[in-house]
Amino acid sequence: MKVGIIGLGLIGGSMAIDLRRKGFASRILGVESDPVNAAAAEKIGLADKVVDFGECVRESDIVILAVPVGAAVKLLPEVLDIFGEDASSGAESSDGDGKCRKTVIDVCSVKEQLIRTVHYHPMRSRYVSTHPMAGTEYSGPWAAMPGLFDGRACIFCNVEESDPAAVRKVEKMYDVLNMRPIYMNASNHDVHTAYVSHISHITSFALALTVLDKEKNEKHIFDLASGGFSSTVRLAKSNADMWVPIFTQNRDNLLQVMDTYIEKMMAFRRAIEDFDEKGVRTLIEDANRIKRIIR
Amino acid sequence: MKVGIIGLGLIGGSMAIDLRRKGFASRILGVESDPVNAAAAEKIGLADKVVDFGECVRESDIVILAVPVGAAVKLLPEVLDIFGEDASSGAESSDGDGKCRKTVIDVCSVKEQLIRTVHYHPMRSRYVSTHPMAGTEYSGPWAAMPGLFDGRACIFCNVEESDPAAVRKVEKMYDVLNMRPIYMNASNHDVHTAYVSHISHITSFALALTVLDKEKNEKHIFDLASGGFSSTVRLAKSNADMWVPIFTQNRDNLLQVMDTYIEKMMAFRRAIEDFDEKGVRTLIEDANRIKRIIR
Repeated sequence: MKVGIIGLGLIGGSMAIDLRRKGFASRILGVESDPVNAAAAEKIGLADKVVDFGECVRESDIVILAVPVGAAVKLLPEVLDIFGEDASSGAESSDGDGKCRKTVIDVCSVKEQLIRTVHYHPMRSRYVSTHPMAGTEYSGPWAAMPGLFDGRACIFCNVEESDPAAVRKVEKMYDVLNMRPIYMNASNHDVHTAYVSHISHITSFALALTVLDKEKNEKHIFDLASGGFSSTVRLAKSNADMWVPIFTQNRDNLLQVMDTYIEKMMAFRRAIEDFDEKGVRTLIEDANRIKRIIR
Repeated sequence: MKVGIIGLGLIGGSMAIDLRRKGFASRILGVESDPVNAAAAEKIGLADKVVDFGECVRESDIVILAVPVGAAVKLLPEVLDIFGEDASSGAESSDGDGKCRKTVIDVCSVKEQLIRTVHYHPMRSRYVSTHPMAGTEYSGPWAAMPGLFDGRACIFCNVEESDPAAVRKVEKMYDVLNMRPIYMNASNHDVHTAYVSHISHITSFALALTVLDKEKNEKHIFDLASGGFSSTVRLAKSNADMWVPIFTQNRDNLLQVMDTYIEKMMAFRRAIEDFDEKGVRTLIEDANRIKRIIR
């Protein structure tokens, strides 16, 4: 299978490594707009060749859009446009019967806007919307690593809008990456990810800002930071290019989560201010229920 | 050296393991008020013998108070009282010259109240106030593990109020545990720990409460929780017995940190609400400076 990967960063690059290693990809074409990243991706060997957008889409059986969601909203219709042109011109991808066999997926962390953008596109059914729930706080081709997806969940959104054969091909691909598929509509997906992923990033960013504000002497933070602090603040290293459009596109869900979060924080603040030890204990013990869920 | 450990939980138990393993402790007496924990600690072999409080203090050269800070405030003067009785009765610990050679340390995460409590105690100089900056989100004798302190920082507070020989003995002990000593006054200690440790616990508790409130279906959290969420919410498993008194005793510093934190959160909320992508980007990039400090 010829795989085209648009965006050779953490996610695209890690997919390249494992799809090749496990024999799913016979050839990988990559697209990378940043010239430094492109040179690195070629040097590391993530793609067989770094090509331009049009060539990548035309030459690949499956196209993976692994770019920030702001860019994905712009590029997804362009990929489908090229699929449409190729199908109507009888190019190889259409098997001569005018029917396109090519597939494009995105791997973004917010879905509704992306899916709405191509809802009426004539090639909509060639698009499968997926969200592999894996990542680290690092970015760029240097951050790519084997095994990133291993054993994690991958959410498929609105599969009923995609061609069943395209869905099967993508399921096969994620199976090769050893991911568990979960099916959900885009709107539910965006609510859940606001709660179990996006808010964690905001709490980490806010924590980093708080500590950096106070501790002008960075040596102190370094000396005193325990494992607990490092773990809670880890996501604050995450990249703005990726997270600004996520927060923008998932704005409404996120504002709701943030309001609940701020309420909980205020409840803690009140209990501590009032020396209400019983109240603090109840809040902590309620929070401890997370033990049942998170190893 | 005969070591007495009051509280055979995560910290006390882990100290027992390494102080014995590295040859610092020739004999370990333990005190554990919870009968289940006491039985477990004996079975695991953390202490040579679980004894009562008085026997432990009388028979040990160095007493480690490894209990929650609320209990420590009560027990520390009692330990010093026994030191005083033994010294005036010419017991072995006083080397016959009426001068006590015994030492007590605490390992608590808040210092000012504890130090103030014994400020005028006639045996004050036999107390060395320390905070080994290590731990996990687990508690109890089952959580004890070798190597917990290895390579971490240990804060010594107000050493000028302790007998220099007692300080040297305790420095030796932490050196055996391979900890880096840092010296600080209690009031600065409490401000710094509010910023680099206590607030992280509150942000985790609040995050767990937010997600548990929303996601009534725990299976969803389990399926969707990425590594990022697990890492930010990890501290929410922490024990109320330990954290309620920390939050109470470090109330004033903590309220100030929480106010700064809530301000940062509100700044994020406003920028997201206003679709102010430039503002969100600035907040994220400011937070990214934590990269320079935390590996």
